[in-house]
Amino acid sequence: MADRNRFVTLNRHVAGGPVEETVFSLAEGTRPAPGDGEVLLRPLALSVDPYLRGQMTGIDTFYLPQFALGQPITSLGVGRVVESRHPGFAAGDLVQGVMQWADYSLWSGSDTLKGVGALGPVDPAIDKLSHALGVYGLNGMTALFGMVGVARPEPGDTVLVSGAAGGIGAVAGQIAHILGARVIGLAGSQAKCDTLVRDLGFDAALNYRSATLADDLRQAMPRGPDIYFDNVGGAVSQAVMAMMRRHTRVVECGQISTYDDENGGWTVDIRPIHANGLIWESFTTAHFAEFYPGGLAQLIHWVRAGKIKILETEHRGLEAAPRAMVGLLRGENIGKMVVTLE
Amino acid sequence: MADRNRFVTLNRHVAGGPVEETVFSLAEGTRPAPGDGEVLLRPLALSVDPYLRGQMTGIDTFYLPQFALGQPITSLGVGRVVESRHPGFAAGDLVQGVMQWADYSLWSGSDTLKGVGALGPVDPAIDKLSHALGVYGLNGMTALFGMVGVARPEPGDTVLVSGAAGGIGAVAGQIAHILGARVIGLAGSQAKCDTLVRDLGFDAALNYRSATLADDLRQAMPRGPDIYFDNVGGAVSQAVMAMMRRHTRVVECGQISTYDDENGGWTVDIRPIHANGLIWESFTTAHFAEFYPGGLAQLIHWVRAGKIKILETEHRGLEAAPRAMVGLLRGENIGKMVVTLE
Repeated sequence: MADRNRFVTLNRHVAGGPVEETVFSLAEGTRPAPGDGEVLLRPLALSVDPYLRGQMTGIDTFYLPQFALGQPITSLGVGRVVESRHPGFAAGDLVQGVMQWADYSLWSGSDTLKGVGALGPVDPAIDKLSHALGVYGLNGMTALFGMVGVARPEPGDTVLVSGAAGGIGAVAGQIAHILGARVIGLAGSQAKCDTLVRDLGFDAALNYRSATLADDLRQAMPRGPDIYFDNVGGAVSQAVMAMMRRHTRVVECGQISTYDDENGGWTVDIRPIHANGLIWESFTTAHFAEFYPGGLAQLIHWVRAGKIKILETEHRGLEAAPRAMVGLLRGENIGKMVVTLE
Repeated sequence: MADRNRFVTLNRHVAGGPVEETVFSLAEGTRPAPGDGEVLLRPLALSVDPYLRGQMTGIDTFYLPQFALGQPITSLGVGRVVESRHPGFAAGDLVQGVMQWADYSLWSGSDTLKGVGALGPVDPAIDKLSHALGVYGLNGMTALFGMVGVARPEPGDTVLVSGAAGGIGAVAGQIAHILGARVIGLAGSQAKCDTLVRDLGFDAALNYRSATLADDLRQAMPRGPDIYFDNVGGAVSQAVMAMMRRHTRVVECGQISTYDDENGGWTVDIRPIHANGLIWESFTTAHFAEFYPGGLAQLIHWVRAGKIKILETEHRGLEAAPRAMVGLLRGENIGKMVVTLE
């Protein structure tokens, strides 16, 4: 059928416990027809990010809207305009923004991800489309602004990055390295740790699943980190914060290890922060939305200069999107998790 | 009996749910005889503080030791030496430090409260003994170093203090006022709020039990606080942090509203910190132990100059100590909660 349109949907919300592939369905509808001001596009690459887990709980918070059951999942993506009834876009345009996990995605002019989801052109300097979602997208911007704008390491500082082999962590660690810091990564396997040190220039990397994590941390940095750039939260961060010195800083970027907790996670046991007198600063990329053009140019420069290496885990086809999401939450990706479509 | 010694003890640990008076017993033993290096003293005033709740859970953390069932509760206190076998103390000396909730307390040279519990003389400049535990003790030092050393408001800053009618909050708010800040207090009754504004010079005070708390906060400070000096945590702090602007700061001093939670509390839902890009800094008084002499002199100066007014809620007699502890956790005190003994 020419007007058939497959889409990935959530068939139940999950709060507490892991997301399995069975909570997703590949449903089928008809290809939408754009109304006035709307754009129909064909997604070419979809960004699979931890924050999506927070839209799957069914728990309303002020933070993110919940996915409606039976409706298409949405995420950031790159696509090509099929039909436009919006003056800013024409058929054939390459665009990025929030889109549906579907063969055809209807963009109705709404920006479902505050400040960072508006539809716009893909910069022609980006040679691989999926990179617009990774190092040049939300992940790269978060790493850049989080490290340069929030963490602000001085040369010689020890920066510890958790989730260091993830889409944000891998870029954040390399930027800390560019800034002259000593960079130590935490990742979930020896293979990931090897990649961080061998390919990305991390000074050291530790497997957080090690039974001797506390000792490993102390050996790698006897005085603890000066800055802990945290993507994971939970038990790993508790172990790190217990060894941090007064006035050293946690820069909190995400808490993926908690998102399967009841109530959707994001709770922190602050006793080590209190007892050790730590400073905690959180941020989201939306706080830096005004600075994306400069951020993009900077990231392109560093990639071309060989100072940032790109890691990506690619799944192919719309039907692989649930697998990609579950794999992300299990830490199966190395670098940016992305789904590419024909 | 000349050698009878009554003491207050915990007969069960409580993790999750409120502490009732029935978890305490007034037990009786014999008056201890000091061994070499030990001191026997008669407590004259006992400090009743929120952190004691954390020693009643039976849950071991690195943060505080648990009270042993059947043994005397201990807290900071002021007492008079009855018999000394320690070269630093003589019978008749007025001393302060960690002591037992008992008619006679044996000090064995141990410092059970890291950095701040060592036995020492009471400064002769202190005219009322219980003040050595309040404005001139842990409460006043915490308020002073928390406000001057951590919060550091600039003149004109809006400083919001929770638990503002408590032993720490009342002093902290007055110090913020001395530093030129606009000070707003959160307290649990209209009577407390009236006292803060009328007697202590707070610019405003809000009842956190008001059904319109979020609106009240927004009316009192349309742009939110510049600094939130937090003694309570929980729902009140969630409401405050939801209205705070990026780069404004939470200075965390305590989380009393959470101590009855399962696992002993101290967990924070960080979503408002993340979404709003806030900075959080925690501290304990132990971080400033080196500066107590200067702190004491400064507090004495401000009290004598009329710039810090002292609020105190006094319970009399050893048998009243459980009532004082339960009352503290219910917010029944105004100012420092103290038990005085004959």
